[in-house]
Amino acid sequence: MLPARALARLAIDPTMKQGAEIKVTFEPSGRGVYVLPGTLILEAAIRAGIVVQTPCGGRGNCGKCRVKVVSGRCREEPCGHVLPKNLLDAGWRLACQCRIETETTVKIPAESLFGVRQKILTGDAGAKTDLRPMVRKVPFRIGAPSHEDSRSDQSRLLDAVGKVSIPYDILRKLPGFLRGNAWSGMAVLAGDRLIGLEPPDSSIVVYGLAVDVGTTTVVGTLLNLSDGTEVAVASALNGQVAYGDDVLTRIKRIREIPEALAHLQQQILDTINGLISELCQASGAERGAIYEVSLSGNSTMQQILCGLDPSPLGEMPFVQAFNKALTFPAFQIGIEVATSAEVYVFPQIESFVGGDTVAGMLASRIDRWTEPVLLVDIGTNGEIVLAHKGRMTAASTAAGPAFEGARISQGMRATAGAIEKVVIADDVILNVIGNKEPIGLCGTALIDAVAEILRHGILDTTGRILDADEAPAGLPDAIRKRIVSCEGGTGFVLQQENKVSGFDAVRLTQRDIRELQLASAAIRAGINVLLKDAGLTPDKLGAILLAGAFGNFIRRNNACRIGLLPPVAHDKIQFIGNASSLGAKLALLSVEERMYAERLAAECRHVDLSQDPSFQQEFSEAMLFPESET
Amino acid sequence: MLPARALARLAIDPTMKQGAEIKVTFEPSGRGVYVLPGTLILEAAIRAGIVVQTPCGGRGNCGKCRVKVVSGRCREEPCGHVLPKNLLDAGWRLACQCRIETETTVKIPAESLFGVRQKILTGDAGAKTDLRPMVRKVPFRIGAPSHEDSRSDQSRLLDAVGKVSIPYDILRKLPGFLRGNAWSGMAVLAGDRLIGLEPPDSSIVVYGLAVDVGTTTVVGTLLNLSDGTEVAVASALNGQVAYGDDVLTRIKRIREIPEALAHLQQQILDTINGLISELCQASGAERGAIYEVSLSGNSTMQQILCGLDPSPLGEMPFVQAFNKALTFPAFQIGIEVATSAEVYVFPQIESFVGGDTVAGMLASRIDRWTEPVLLVDIGTNGEIVLAHKGRMTAASTAAGPAFEGARISQGMRATAGAIEKVVIADDVILNVIGNKEPIGLCGTALIDAVAEILRHGILDTTGRILDADEAPAGLPDAIRKRIVSCEGGTGFVLQQENKVSGFDAVRLTQRDIRELQLASAAIRAGINVLLKDAGLTPDKLGAILLAGAFGNFIRRNNACRIGLLPPVAHDKIQFIGNASSLGAKLALLSVEERMYAERLAAECRHVDLSQDPSFQQEFSEAMLFPESET
Repeated sequence: MLPARALARLAIDPTMKQGAEIKVTFEPSGRGVYVLPGTLILEAAIRAGIVVQTPCGGRGNCGKCRVKVVSGRCREEPCGHVLPKNLLDAGWRLACQCRIETETTVKIPAESLFGVRQKILTGDAGAKTDLRPMVRKVPFRIGAPSHEDSRSDQSRLLDAVGKVSIPYDILRKLPGFLRGNAWSGMAVLAGDRLIGLEPPDSSIVVYGLAVDVGTTTVVGTLLNLSDGTEVAVASALNGQVAYGDDVLTRIKRIREIPEALAHLQQQILDTINGLISELCQASGAERGAIYEVSLSGNSTMQQILCGLDPSPLGEMPFVQAFNKALTFPAFQIGIEVATSAEVYVFPQIESFVGGDTVAGMLASRIDRWTEPVLLVDIGTNGEIVLAHKGRMTAASTAAGPAFEGARISQGMRATAGAIEKVVIADDVILNVIGNKEPIGLCGTALIDAVAEILRHGILDTTGRILDADEAPAGLPDAIRKRIVSCEGGTGFVLQQENKVSGFDAVRLTQRDIRELQLASAAIRAGINVLLKDAGLTPDKLGAILLAGAFGNFIRRNNACRIGLLPPVAHDKIQFIGNASSLGAKLALLSVEERMYAERLAAECRHVDLSQDPSFQQEFSEAMLFPESET
Repeated sequence: MLPARALARLAIDPTMKQGAEIKVTFEPSGRGVYVLPGTLILEAAIRAGIVVQTPCGGRGNCGKCRVKVVSGRCREEPCGHVLPKNLLDAGWRLACQCRIETETTVKIPAESLFGVRQKILTGDAGAKTDLRPMVRKVPFRIGAPSHEDSRSDQSRLLDAVGKVSIPYDILRKLPGFLRGNAWSGMAVLAGDRLIGLEPPDSSIVVYGLAVDVGTTTVVGTLLNLSDGTEVAVASALNGQVAYGDDVLTRIKRIREIPEALAHLQQQILDTINGLISELCQASGAERGAIYEVSLSGNSTMQQILCGLDPSPLGEMPFVQAFNKALTFPAFQIGIEVATSAEVYVFPQIESFVGGDTVAGMLASRIDRWTEPVLLVDIGTNGEIVLAHKGRMTAASTAAGPAFEGARISQGMRATAGAIEKVVIADDVILNVIGNKEPIGLCGTALIDAVAEILRHGILDTTGRILDADEAPAGLPDAIRKRIVSCEGGTGFVLQQENKVSGFDAVRLTQRDIRELQLASAAIRAGINVLLKDAGLTPDKLGAILLAGAFGNFIRRNNACRIGLLPPVAHDKIQFIGNASSLGAKLALLSVEERMYAERLAAECRHVDLSQDPSFQQEFSEAMLFPESET
C-alpha cells in the first residue's frame, strides 16, 4: 500500500467520492475549469491560469493563499494555520488545504495572487505607484499663436508635453493636426519619444498586449495600462504547428526552404493578429488603442516572429541573432495594433535560453530569494536557471517530445480524451480531459503512471516493467492483471478495452518508459550540472519553481518519484504558472520591470551542457529511477 | 569731384587703365572669375566664393590675408603692414591691398581663409582634432562563433564596435551579413547609432553633403568627412523659381493648391539630386558614399524641402513648424544618397529667421566677438542678428525684390548683360557681367548708381532726382547731360542708346529710386530697432558682417552712402561670403558645431518688427538718404 505521507500529498484524495468532473468558477475573472471532486482549490486555480501565492509551499501554515468560497461545498484539511472564526464563517478558506466537493464559485482576492502581480494589477491606491508603463497619453491644450507668442508648432507642443523627441513623420503632421484640432489633443508618448498624436476627444486609455509566444500555444493578455488591470486573456495554437511540433523541425524547414522564414513568420503573426481580434471583441477595446506589445518566447520563436533567420540556432554552437531586448515599431513586422505602437521583445541569454526564460526570471524575482532557487520550465527543450547569492546560471537541455505525448505509443497532447492524471490505489483511477472515454495519455499522466507503478513495485529502477509474476506479492489483483504482454514486451493497461463503445485499451509500454527516462534524465542532468557548478546539493535549495504550461500540471510528488526533479521536500516545489506570460505583462506595466529583465539577462551566465563533460555522466545516472520515495 | 577718402575705398581704382575683364584663377581650388583691372584680390576671391579672412577690416595692417601671386601682375598699395622682403620676393601679397592688373593666378593658403574653416578643412595634423563628424565608419573583424564563444550576433558586433544601438531593420540583416562576409565588415555609425553595414572591402571614406538651400540659388558642397577636405562644389537655380521668385509667392501657391506642397518639394529635391550627380561626377565620389546631408535655408525653404506645410508662414503671426534641428533618414524625403544616410536640418529661430541665419551665426561665431557685432543677410527678406555681450537678438524684415532687380524699370538678376558696378568720376564707368553691351542693371549697380548720383548732388536726401538745371554747378557736362526726362519724371542715363548695335539706353528712373528707398529702409530700420533694443549706437559696433550672395557683392561705401548700412568705419564692414553654406559644412564636420548651432538658435531672441511700434518710425526716417558721406 502507499505510505500515508505520499497519499496526503496527492492532489486527489482517493477516499473522496469519485465521479464526474465538476465546475469551479473563479471570481473576479469569471474563468471556469472542470476538475475531479477532491481537487485542491490551489490546483484548480492553476488550471484556470490563476496562480495563487504559496510562500509556505502549500503546507497550510502561512495563510497567504486565502480565498473565499462564495458558493458550493469544500472540505478543509486540518492544518497549522487556522483562519480566524469570523473569516471562516464568511467562507474564507486556504486554497492549499481546501478540496472541492461540489460545483463551486471561489473568489480570489488580489492579495492572494502570486508574486508581484497583486501589487501592480490591483486598483488599490498604495500599489499604483508601481504602474509606470512605457506608453502613456498626455492631453494638451495650448494657446493659438499670437503676435505676443509666435513660437513654432514644435516648441508649443514641447512646452506643453515636456521634453520629448518628435520624429520626423509626426512633426510632418503636426501643423495640420494642431490647426485641425483647435490647438489641443492627446500626445502618445513612449518614454521620452512622441509616437503619436490623437484628437482631444480620444480616449486617454492605453492598452498593452502581452504575448507569450510558445512553440505550441500562444497566450495573449490585454492590459489596460492606464490602471494596470487585465481586461482579457486568450490563447491559440501557434499557426506554425502545422510545420512541425518542435523548434528544430521549424528551423530545419527554414534552413532548407528559402521562403520558409517569411512563411513561418506570417503564421505566428496571423496567430497573434487573430488573438488581438478575439481580445478586442471580448473586452470592447479597440485595436487602435493598443500602443504596446511585449513578446516573450524561446529563442527560435522570438527570432522567427521578428523575421530574424534562426538558422544559426540549427547548428552547433547554436548562436542567437540577438540577446539584448529589441524595441521597434509594431507595423514593421505586421502586428495589427495602433499605427504608432511599438514592440518590446524580451532579452535572451544564449543559445536556447531565450526570452521566455528571462520573463520567468523576472516574474519570479529570481535573484532576490535568500536561499538558492531553481527555475525549471519543462518542455521539449527544458530551460533551467539556478540563482544563488545573486549569481545566476542558465542551461537548456533537449528533453525531446515525450512530455508532449510524442513518441509515446498512445501519447497525445493534453486535449479532450487524454488521460491527464493517474492514481493507483486498490485499482487505477483516471482523470480524463473532457470527462470522456480515454483515447490516450498526455505527459502528466505518463509521469503519474510511471511513478505509481514504481511505487507499486511493478517497475524496477532501471525502468524495466516486471512481468505479472515478478511483481510484489501484496499487489491487488485488479492491478496485477493489468500487467500484460504488448508490442514484444511487457506493458501496463491503464484503461481496458471497451467492447461496447468500441474504444481501444490504453496501455503503457516498455518503450514508453524508455522515452520518459530519456526526457526526464535530460532535465535532471541539467539541474544536477547547474547545482554542481554552484557547489550545491539539492537539500540546499530553498525552492524549485515550476514554470510553463507543462510544469504547472505535473504532480510534484510524482515528478520527484521518477527523478525528474531532485529530492527536495515537496512543499518546496512551487507552481508559478505561465511565468513567461506574467513576465511579458510586467514588462508592459513598468519600464523598471524591463530594465530589471535586461539586467537579469545580462548577468545570467549560460552553461553549455553540450560542452560540459559532466553532463553525459549525470545523464547516465539520471536514467535510473530513484530507489525509493523521497 | 569725389573726395579722396571715398575714392581710396573704391574697389576699382579709376586711375587705372580701364578695359576688358581679365581672368583671375585661384589655387588650390582652381576656381576662376573675370574682373575689371584694378579689382582687389580680396574682392575677386569673394566673387569666386572664397572668403579670405580680414580681421583688420581690409585696412592692410594685420597681414592675415596674405596670398601668393603665382603669375600675372598686381599692384600693391602702400599700407601699414609690410610683408618681409623674402616673402615679397617670393610673390606674397596682402589680398586686401593688392589690385589685379593682368591675367593672374593667385594661391590662397589655408591659413588665410575666413573664420574657422581653415582650422578644420586643412590637412595639417594639429587641426584634425576638430574633425568630429556625426557619421564614421568602423571596420571590424570578429571571431566566428565556437563552443567556447557562442555570444549572439548582436553581442559580437557590439563588443567589436562599441556600445551603439542597432535598429531593428539592420539587426535583421546582421546574421546573413556576418556569415556572408566571414565575420568582418564596416559598421557605419551616426553618433551612437548603427546606421549601416558594409562589406569589409568597402571604402572607409565617408562623404557629407552640405546644401545651402536658397530661395533662388542652391549651393551644394561635397566634403570628405574622413579628412575634412572639400572635394567639390556646385550650384544650381532652385527649381521652385518657376513658381515664383520669392517665398511669399510660393507659400501663397501652397495655400491655394492642394498638391503644390508636394510639387514644390519635388522641385527642390530634383535640384538637390541634380547637384549630387554633378558633385559626384566632378569628384569621382559615389552617391552611395554620402552618408550625411546638412541643409540650411530660410524657414520657408527648409519647411518645403522637409514637406512641412509652410502655410502658417503665410499669415500673421508667421509661425514656423519647427525651430529645433531635425535629424531623419534622407530616404524619407527622397534625397538620393546612401540608403542609411541621414539629413540634418538647421535649427531655426522664429518666423522668417530660419536655418540659413543660424548657419551664418555659427560660421561667424557671432556670440564670441568682444565688441557688439551685426550679422546682416540682405535679400528679399533681410535677416539681421545683433550679438552683444553674449545676448543675441534677431529680426527679419521684408525688403522686397528691388535688390534682385525686380520692380526696377530696367532691373535684372546678376546675369550676363547686367551692369553690376557703377563708378561716376568724370564720366560714368560701368562693369557689365560677361563684358557685354549692358541690357539692364542688377541690385549692386542700383546701389552704386544711387550712391554716386547722391555724391554728385544729382539726388537730394528725399530721393528726388534733380533736374539738369538744378544739379550742382561743378558737375561735368558728360554727367549733366545724362539727366533726362523719362517715364513722366526725371531719370539718369547710365548707358546711352547704341544705335549701331541696336541696344536701348539703360536708365535709372525716379520710381527706381523709390523702390530702392523702400528696400533699403526696411533693412536699415530693422538694424536700428535691434541696436536701440540693445541700447547701442552704430559707433559701438565692432563689425558688420555681410552674409549671403547679395551682401558679398555690394560696395561697402555705397551701402553706407545710401543709408542701407549704418554709419560705421567702412573697414568694420566685413564680407563673410556664403555663411549659410559655411555653417552647413561646419555642421557636417563636427557634432560639436551642431550643438553650438542649436545653442545659438535657442539663445537668440526674436524681435517681431511687425509688432514693434518703433519700427514704423525708424522706417520713415530711413527713407531719407543720409545728408553726406560717413
